[in-house]
Amino acid sequence: MGTVNSETGEERKYSVEELREAAVELRAYDLLSIFAAGSGHPGGTLSIMDVAAALYLHEARHDPKNSTWPDRDRVFWSAGHKAPALYVCLAKSGYFPMEDVLTLRRLDSRCQGHPHWLKCDGVEISSGSLGQGLSVAVGSALAAKLDGRSNRVYCIMGDGEQQEGSIWEAAMSAAQFALDQLVGIVDCNQLQIDGWVRDVMSVDPLHRKYEAFGWHVIEIDGHDIEQILDAFAHARAVKGQPTVILAHTVKGKGVSFMENVAKWHGVAPKKREELDQGLNDIMGENVWSKEEVDRLLDIARKYEEDIRPQVEAEVPKFSRDYWWNSGERMRVEMKPTRFGFGEAMAKIGSDPRIVTIHADISDSIRITDFEKAHPERRDRVISVGIAEQNMMTVAAGLAKEGKIPVAGTYGVFASGRPWDQLRTTVCYSNLNVKIAGAHGGVSVGADGATHQALEEITLMTILPNMHVVVPADAPETAKAAEAIILQVVGPGYVRYAREATPIVTKADTPFVFGRANVIRFRAEADDFLDAFQTVLASEYKSEDEDVTIIACGPMVPEAMRAAYILHQEHGLQARIVNMHTVKPMDEEAITRAIEETGLVVTAEEHQVGGFGNLVAGVAARTKNYSTPFVMGMVGVADRFGESGSPWDLMKKFGLCAEHIAEKVKGLLDQKGR
Amino acid sequence: MGTVNSETGEERKYSVEELREAAVELRAYDLLSIFAAGSGHPGGTLSIMDVAAALYLHEARHDPKNSTWPDRDRVFWSAGHKAPALYVCLAKSGYFPMEDVLTLRRLDSRCQGHPHWLKCDGVEISSGSLGQGLSVAVGSALAAKLDGRSNRVYCIMGDGEQQEGSIWEAAMSAAQFALDQLVGIVDCNQLQIDGWVRDVMSVDPLHRKYEAFGWHVIEIDGHDIEQILDAFAHARAVKGQPTVILAHTVKGKGVSFMENVAKWHGVAPKKREELDQGLNDIMGENVWSKEEVDRLLDIARKYEEDIRPQVEAEVPKFSRDYWWNSGERMRVEMKPTRFGFGEAMAKIGSDPRIVTIHADISDSIRITDFEKAHPERRDRVISVGIAEQNMMTVAAGLAKEGKIPVAGTYGVFASGRPWDQLRTTVCYSNLNVKIAGAHGGVSVGADGATHQALEEITLMTILPNMHVVVPADAPETAKAAEAIILQVVGPGYVRYAREATPIVTKADTPFVFGRANVIRFRAEADDFLDAFQTVLASEYKSEDEDVTIIACGPMVPEAMRAAYILHQEHGLQARIVNMHTVKPMDEEAITRAIEETGLVVTAEEHQVGGFGNLVAGVAARTKNYSTPFVMGMVGVADRFGESGSPWDLMKKFGLCAEHIAEKVKGLLDQKGR
Repeated sequence: MGTVNSETGEERKYSVEELREAAVELRAYDLLSIFAAGSGHPGGTLSIMDVAAALYLHEARHDPKNSTWPDRDRVFWSAGHKAPALYVCLAKSGYFPMEDVLTLRRLDSRCQGHPHWLKCDGVEISSGSLGQGLSVAVGSALAAKLDGRSNRVYCIMGDGEQQEGSIWEAAMSAAQFALDQLVGIVDCNQLQIDGWVRDVMSVDPLHRKYEAFGWHVIEIDGHDIEQILDAFAHARAVKGQPTVILAHTVKGKGVSFMENVAKWHGVAPKKREELDQGLNDIMGENVWSKEEVDRLLDIARKYEEDIRPQVEAEVPKFSRDYWWNSGERMRVEMKPTRFGFGEAMAKIGSDPRIVTIHADISDSIRITDFEKAHPERRDRVISVGIAEQNMMTVAAGLAKEGKIPVAGTYGVFASGRPWDQLRTTVCYSNLNVKIAGAHGGVSVGADGATHQALEEITLMTILPNMHVVVPADAPETAKAAEAIILQVVGPGYVRYAREATPIVTKADTPFVFGRANVIRFRAEADDFLDAFQTVLASEYKSEDEDVTIIACGPMVPEAMRAAYILHQEHGLQARIVNMHTVKPMDEEAITRAIEETGLVVTAEEHQVGGFGNLVAGVAARTKNYSTPFVMGMVGVADRFGESGSPWDLMKKFGLCAEHIAEKVKGLLDQKGR
Repeated sequence: MGTVNSETGEERKYSVEELREAAVELRAYDLLSIFAAGSGHPGGTLSIMDVAAALYLHEARHDPKNSTWPDRDRVFWSAGHKAPALYVCLAKSGYFPMEDVLTLRRLDSRCQGHPHWLKCDGVEISSGSLGQGLSVAVGSALAAKLDGRSNRVYCIMGDGEQQEGSIWEAAMSAAQFALDQLVGIVDCNQLQIDGWVRDVMSVDPLHRKYEAFGWHVIEIDGHDIEQILDAFAHARAVKGQPTVILAHTVKGKGVSFMENVAKWHGVAPKKREELDQGLNDIMGENVWSKEEVDRLLDIARKYEEDIRPQVEAEVPKFSRDYWWNSGERMRVEMKPTRFGFGEAMAKIGSDPRIVTIHADISDSIRITDFEKAHPERRDRVISVGIAEQNMMTVAAGLAKEGKIPVAGTYGVFASGRPWDQLRTTVCYSNLNVKIAGAHGGVSVGADGATHQALEEITLMTILPNMHVVVPADAPETAKAAEAIILQVVGPGYVRYAREATPIVTKADTPFVFGRANVIRFRAEADDFLDAFQTVLASEYKSEDEDVTIIACGPMVPEAMRAAYILHQEHGLQARIVNMHTVKPMDEEAITRAIEETGLVVTAEEHQVGGFGNLVAGVAARTKNYSTPFVMGMVGVADRFGESGSPWDLMKKFGLCAEHIAEKVKGLLDQKGR
């Protein structure tokens, strides 16, 4: 029926022709919003658009003015990366103005990189970690049964997503519960990040899988509006079992250069010519004028300008600007730590024991550097698809036979999704499995909360037998990865990040697994790196500094900059402890810091205390200190991340040098009192 | 081929008739070992025995004198609860003496409740958390391919286990990798803990599922030796795809009163008459004499006697015995905290919003008390089978629609297995999902490490929006469960335990969610409970005690007994803080304890620091104290649990009042110095 006024019962149901026209408009806004965001997922949003338009504007009964209407049909987007398609459908339905989609992936936008139901009216559930939505839909349908409601429940999934085992748990239960009000929709566009689904991890024959799991299966051309509407009608007639619609689609549908090209899964068009070409392809002769496109893009620019003062207000101010590369001196080179991981994989990959495991996210986390220039290593590359539980237990099987498997994906999916597998099969069995946990921290940026790992240090350090490194920069990541893969025997986890961060170590900077470094600011220099001295903590002689800042990962450069600020602004001396090995932790470096400086501040790009409480625990358990000590912690304040640019998020979440320096100064002032 | 001497190539392959005889002997030892242990899983060990005997004694090539022979065939037991069947097969093959199986489930035995490959020669992988073994087998088969080995890989699973999504991830990948050396074996005995598989969560038609996932399927009578051997031979001939053998069996096969009865899944025969009847049913006229059975059972008794002094040596000694109910006075009633959870569910279940979700483990965790005496609530009971990820996301869907779902299973499977679901769909979405995490701690006992949850406090407290309670005894568990289910709005986790522990609170003992209690020992009494006074921490006036012991869960009674010991032995005064709410934590109770007593010892039945470091973090972040403070922690020392009796494990892992008292005394002595 499409949208309904739940008070009057008045309905607005698009005709086939209107739906075709709407799909054109929605694709145009979708592409434009992703272009304006500078990141996002065009491929899978363009492929699902006809189905989504038919669902929101014709089939599903929902009321944009009363989004919690109990009798509404529910639409769950399990494939959260299709968010822009969801947003344009909601806007077109009337939940909010269409032009709001131009704020996609920006700080505080309702249009988060992956949908968040607490931020955006009309979104039924937050999603982004694949394979969870169908279960939510099952729960929602069960609630409808309990409450005697006759609303229908839809769930939109990707075909690559069918690789997640949790999908099959949900599928099995939906059949067991005979949920005939439930309709699963699979956007079968045949491509996922790493390539063709059939190559990454074939889900075929999908119709036979669903049939064997007790579902009624309908296969359609997912770009044929009439077939789509017929399928929905057909599904309504099925009784006693759930229905799945396998919508065969073209990834990137409507944009000539995107169709059936895997790279456009999660990459935004960057050039205006690409956008213009895309809009032309989609809209044909009705394409927006250049002025109209400019006007629309200006909405994003304006939004960004508006939030700028709010972001900057989050950063403590000093007598001058100490931001990275803001002045002529103290220059620093920026490089993502993930590049360091890739370099290590390229270097040590000649060891024939090393096998890498991909879970669809491989190139962006640089694990592919293992084989890129080494075709002879390709038989040691295993793809398991989007199936992280299988990933870690397959790794266990390989390790058991003497291999050194390196399994990599984003940190959330590398630590939390397969946690029980890591506990029982990897750590309890003490197997030599190495885990590359990429995209740690809020600095992941626009993808938003679901993809910003903020809990892995905690999840991994609590596991017996696990070793954990959180290196400070790209060069140190290369060293740490090599150490944890080749030197450590047993389970190991390396946490690294997405965004370019300052290079603060050199080839000859000491790195000993399990032993911290001390870093000291000496004097301003042309190169930031030359302003500091680094030694092994065990070899450092106390200079009775005013404070110790204990940090890990890309918070080490921030701690260094904080030391610089504290020195220049207040004449204070700070000892920086680079605790690159988080488990086992260098306890002596901590207890010496407490005894010798009396004030310790920890810094982590993580839920606060995940790292800091480990330090506090060492401090507290270490018997007698001659004087009371004071401690402070900088980190994420027990909350989830959000979309935004990486550095804006660091500012908003209080993770910059300026925040550390302010925290130190405040504690020193208190201590002095 | 059966067993092989890998040096000489000599083989020993049982004939059909020999296998039939061996299966009788193996079933007898299996039953006897479970009887001797007093717990274990007879049903599924008896059903798989013919297949297992045929595999170990005829089909698989392995060398008991060279268990790491690279060319051996691998047998992975994914269904770890079938461990006794595995042990008798290994013993019969010659890995160790058969009579060792009589030490099943006892402290330090090679025969852990669930198999541990680092403890028992011939075990290929540690297992016990279902759904992981097939992936390990895939990894092992991939390694064989890489190394050019032609060994075969077998994986034994249960039919209920097919409910785990991770099985289908593994199945999909085995087909993708064309692993024709891989043979899955499903023991289709049609029963799981909660009842018939078809009722709990049907996996039928299983052959069509495996076919749709690209496997070759063979169905056999799993008790017909010839069919079993034919199936293995048939599987060897299959090329280009993995094979699964669906072995249709009878649960409890061979023991008249166990056959097809669900309750015998995980319950040992307790009466000697049951054992004798079972042995008679299995062995017929060749049944062991009473004397022989006595002799065999004496092996278990003797083993227990031998370890007794070792266990007792782990407990610090005082001038007299302070153990629970060891004297005439200070008597205490014992009751498992899980009973308190059940009482709460029975009481508050009339709230129509409450829906419970079972994941096959329901009766033992007492969640079934919700509906036991209330048939009218049964439509609010949902069974999802062994599928914890689906469990939590179905719960999310229910919560979204206004229900209060209570999802319960063992703590490991309630926190770690669905962690990503709890993070993204429950906590990020801030949904009103309640989790009953049963069987927390090593006091779970004989089931062993895989089933002893020691990490949940950490896993749950790191999640934003989550609330966590760890109540001290059964009555407090009832109060805490009610509070977290009805009073808290948002995600909540209640951790409780299996074993009976002292009742140390009364109906009128204060319980306020989020606010700690202070407990003080006053004077010896007939009832332990009457020897103590309990008030809200915020209402407590300092008595300048010598130490504060901050504890949660069943460590609170131990802390109380420690206070009693410290008073009687050393005249020391201890403040006990019962931190039943672990998130949000009562920070004032901590900082006051530090300021007022100067010495804090934390006590947790958990990986040490999971709770203690949270306290240390609060302590450290709390600015200035007038004097240095000293802190100590009692907990599990960063290691996994093991099998044994609950209280023996508490002793061995250093979790008793005596350990706390000793730790306090030691720190006080140091502090005094």
